[in-house]
Amino acid sequence: MKKSALQIARASYQPKLPKALKGQVSIKEGTPTESVADQAEIKKLFPNTYGMPVISFEPSNESKNYPAITAGVILSGGQAPGGHNVIAGLFDGLKAINKNSKLYGFLLGPAGLIEHNYIELTSDIIDEYRNTGGFDIIGSGRTKLETVEQFDKGLEIIKQLGIQALVIIGGDDSNTNACVLAEYYKKINAGVQVIGCPKTIDGDLKNEMIETSFGFDTACKVYSEVIGNIQRDCNSAKKYWHFIKLMGRSASHIALECALQTQPNICIISEEVEEKNMSLDNVVTYIADIVAARAAEGNNFGTVLIPEGLIEFIPAMKKLIAELNDFLAKNGNEFAMIKKSEQRNYIINHLSSENSAIYASLPEGVARQLSLDRDPHGNVQVSLIETEKLLSEMVGKKLAEMKSEGKYTGKFAAQHHFFGYEGRCAAPSNFDADYCYSLGYTASALIAEGKTGYMSSVRNTTKPAEEWIAGGVPVTMMMNMERRHGEMKPVIQKALVKLDDAPFKYFASQREIWAKDTCYVYPGPIQYFGPTEVCDQPTITLVLEAQGK
Amino acid sequence: MKKSALQIARASYQPKLPKALKGQVSIKEGTPTESVADQAEIKKLFPNTYGMPVISFEPSNESKNYPAITAGVILSGGQAPGGHNVIAGLFDGLKAINKNSKLYGFLLGPAGLIEHNYIELTSDIIDEYRNTGGFDIIGSGRTKLETVEQFDKGLEIIKQLGIQALVIIGGDDSNTNACVLAEYYKKINAGVQVIGCPKTIDGDLKNEMIETSFGFDTACKVYSEVIGNIQRDCNSAKKYWHFIKLMGRSASHIALECALQTQPNICIISEEVEEKNMSLDNVVTYIADIVAARAAEGNNFGTVLIPEGLIEFIPAMKKLIAELNDFLAKNGNEFAMIKKSEQRNYIINHLSSENSAIYASLPEGVARQLSLDRDPHGNVQVSLIETEKLLSEMVGKKLAEMKSEGKYTGKFAAQHHFFGYEGRCAAPSNFDADYCYSLGYTASALIAEGKTGYMSSVRNTTKPAEEWIAGGVPVTMMMNMERRHGEMKPVIQKALVKLDDAPFKYFASQREIWAKDTCYVYPGPIQYFGPTEVCDQPTITLVLEAQGK
Repeated sequence: MKKSALQIARASYQPKLPKALKGQVSIKEGTPTESVADQAEIKKLFPNTYGMPVISFEPSNESKNYPAITAGVILSGGQAPGGHNVIAGLFDGLKAINKNSKLYGFLLGPAGLIEHNYIELTSDIIDEYRNTGGFDIIGSGRTKLETVEQFDKGLEIIKQLGIQALVIIGGDDSNTNACVLAEYYKKINAGVQVIGCPKTIDGDLKNEMIETSFGFDTACKVYSEVIGNIQRDCNSAKKYWHFIKLMGRSASHIALECALQTQPNICIISEEVEEKNMSLDNVVTYIADIVAARAAEGNNFGTVLIPEGLIEFIPAMKKLIAELNDFLAKNGNEFAMIKKSEQRNYIINHLSSENSAIYASLPEGVARQLSLDRDPHGNVQVSLIETEKLLSEMVGKKLAEMKSEGKYTGKFAAQHHFFGYEGRCAAPSNFDADYCYSLGYTASALIAEGKTGYMSSVRNTTKPAEEWIAGGVPVTMMMNMERRHGEMKPVIQKALVKLDDAPFKYFASQREIWAKDTCYVYPGPIQYFGPTEVCDQPTITLVLEAQGK
Repeated sequence: MKKSALQIARASYQPKLPKALKGQVSIKEGTPTESVADQAEIKKLFPNTYGMPVISFEPSNESKNYPAITAGVILSGGQAPGGHNVIAGLFDGLKAINKNSKLYGFLLGPAGLIEHNYIELTSDIIDEYRNTGGFDIIGSGRTKLETVEQFDKGLEIIKQLGIQALVIIGGDDSNTNACVLAEYYKKINAGVQVIGCPKTIDGDLKNEMIETSFGFDTACKVYSEVIGNIQRDCNSAKKYWHFIKLMGRSASHIALECALQTQPNICIISEEVEEKNMSLDNVVTYIADIVAARAAEGNNFGTVLIPEGLIEFIPAMKKLIAELNDFLAKNGNEFAMIKKSEQRNYIINHLSSENSAIYASLPEGVARQLSLDRDPHGNVQVSLIETEKLLSEMVGKKLAEMKSEGKYTGKFAAQHHFFGYEGRCAAPSNFDADYCYSLGYTASALIAEGKTGYMSSVRNTTKPAEEWIAGGVPVTMMMNMERRHGEMKPVIQKALVKLDDAPFKYFASQREIWAKDTCYVYPGPIQYFGPTEVCDQPTITLVLEAQGK
């Protein structure tokens, strides 16, 4: 494997650890915990793992001898920068506990456990992947660990390899499932601990005890680098509006963080659109008004950040999509017989008047996409809609109307971008390299202490790594009951952008100035070797959240 | 203006200069030069600036006193990383020559000279822009300086400000025009020198004396960073083929350099397609065969780099577009009367049989684009064609055919990317920061020596900056006669990718291995503060070209 110069130089980076994890560790247990909501139901579903205390680790002078540990690790779901460092931290932690400890990696996600595909992770392998991006060390996958059959099948290989503890690195769903697995193995006395690690670039797995999910920092910094470059271009050429869509379907944390880092003219926050019950036309008008106001000052250029999930947060669009799904499920055969050129009118004539009007207002391409391209379950594929183009097209139309009314004089030309894959597998920033390594290392300490049903937790992350607080949070503590696919299920609450939290409030206090003036900030590429104020900063979201507390 | 931490830290970077420029400078002149071709015509067109010697500067112990110089500077054409450093180098060089020297910047490109829009560039302004990307210090523009009226209008403000020398920073066309201007001002004894600087991210302004144009290094490194990230994702998720289009319409240097840096599975080089007279179907088949070969080994993923200008290099497409332009010019009115659903057939029935067949083979969207969207001159807008989607769609169809013939078993899912604006205004790499600063500094030395019609030249650039050779090349030396818009004109030869040069030959020797195996390299983000092998490397193109000499 040929390596780049940076990869070679970066391999020797030793991630920073919290003080408590550097030598001997003592454990401090808090009082029993409750779930965030639906306490009775959650307790009933998790009789063996409910109510456990929050744990923190502290430095200790007492030397303890631990037996060797054999552990397994799984990467679950979409890639996030730093996954390899979680595994490296876990490996180093296990070896520090007892040099005869072993670590197995299950291949291509949870499927590896069920199908008994694994490798032993030796120091040679680990060293190849330290501080690198990607999940290619053992691969990842989206199989969900949900059924007792899967749990039992997994247990076979766990027993065969002598594994005492399983570490599952994943998002909210994967960690929920990790807890169900922990509960099950405890119930049947399998003698297998299960520990989770909070991963997702989307940033929507966070709460009081989990300040941030890993990968969010790096991904946002990569996106902000290229957004900054585009803004510099925008401000040099002064002739385009750049519509930039950012990955993250269920929450707008990425768009918000990138806005805080780069100060674009416009950033749409899905959660706000939903809370204010804005229509697509409201969003378009909001953008068009800013374009017109800038044009009035001679500035026919600007930048717009758009979260990938926007369409599904617009209440009226959600209703339209629901009716379309229903309608096409019932009338799909008749619809298929209609001439392509007549399909649009057919739908307009058959939907409820409210949804019909919205459908009629959509650009032709999007309307066709909504009625034709359906997934195997018959649902329209919202993710295929190129929201950045949809918005710029509708803004263009709105501006043409405004021009004819004398409310706009200017030129409007748009460029489109979508950033997602560009950042999910970037090599981790120092923050993510340190944070991930600490999460993995913490997981090893939780294993040594015999814990199960915990998520590895590293807090106080706006301070230098030295002062970070390592410990464990019972996964049940983060749960509530939610309806999923028609059934009430225990799940970890998804953290959406909250409009009364400090990051959004700061953004909202600045956005009118950013819209009117040109206040672009150019963060530049992630740096690994420079001064600490350049290389070791957490996200602005984290800093504002910490200040807001 | 709020600055990022990196921007603040980077402001104090002192670009490295060639030894010869660090103190007193002596000038060494070579023998008279000839243009690369059409010597008699070029000599006739440039009687006052033809045949001048190549100049190099050398360190000197002799202290000379120069009078203060007043100079003007213009940024011309598309942005390229490092433009601000050319201006900073020019400014510092002028001040080193005589502290009372002055520099004016003309605003928004050559138009600023004609329209008399300018600012004085003081040290406060220069310091704000050192080592930053973009052209926003004075803006750029695409007005061409071509007519005597423009030259005379410019001369008014030049005389008014007491400017003795004009530095024009631009691509091949802008430097050609700079030379025409130099010739004119010399002819009329205006007493105004004109010096050019070689700028373009496309890398197509290079020759024996100009090793590389500035900005190419940084832009390619930014693109390679994100391509590398995508490749790491590709190799982790193992489920997508990523089709990545790269900016650069007239030459494939960017795609080639990015391929050398990242080792993708496939990279199309337009110049090869043209030279081998490949059809669109040939290109599609080439890609589909590699997709199928990888699928046969269980690898349903990969990366394809595509140069933006590909379509115009495919001889058959070029012919089709030419006939379409002609046909629609003549039959536009009749065509406009035809029902939209019949237009495709109408064109198929009216083109020559060869072009008709090609047109019929195009995906519907592209066919529509080629017949409907025309620019104000009535030409089809090739640049609007999303080549990356066109190719992936056609590859998908080809694979479906191959599947039905039992020649392919696999899954094909594609993702699309286009990188251009992401890199044009990135902050310059150390290489570009040093190279640009040296180019600007060299320009000041050429001015001090009374030269005109020269391009600033810095060579030996694969060695440490200390050993770079600074000097000047007569612009006429790089010229030949070419037909442009129906007229023979003197122009600087555009440097396309040459199939017998070292960079392409190395790529060609490796590509079969890269196609079959997964040999991705992950260059990571540009680093400014780390070890020299990470921070100070030139492009691989430059290194291979130097080795190939």
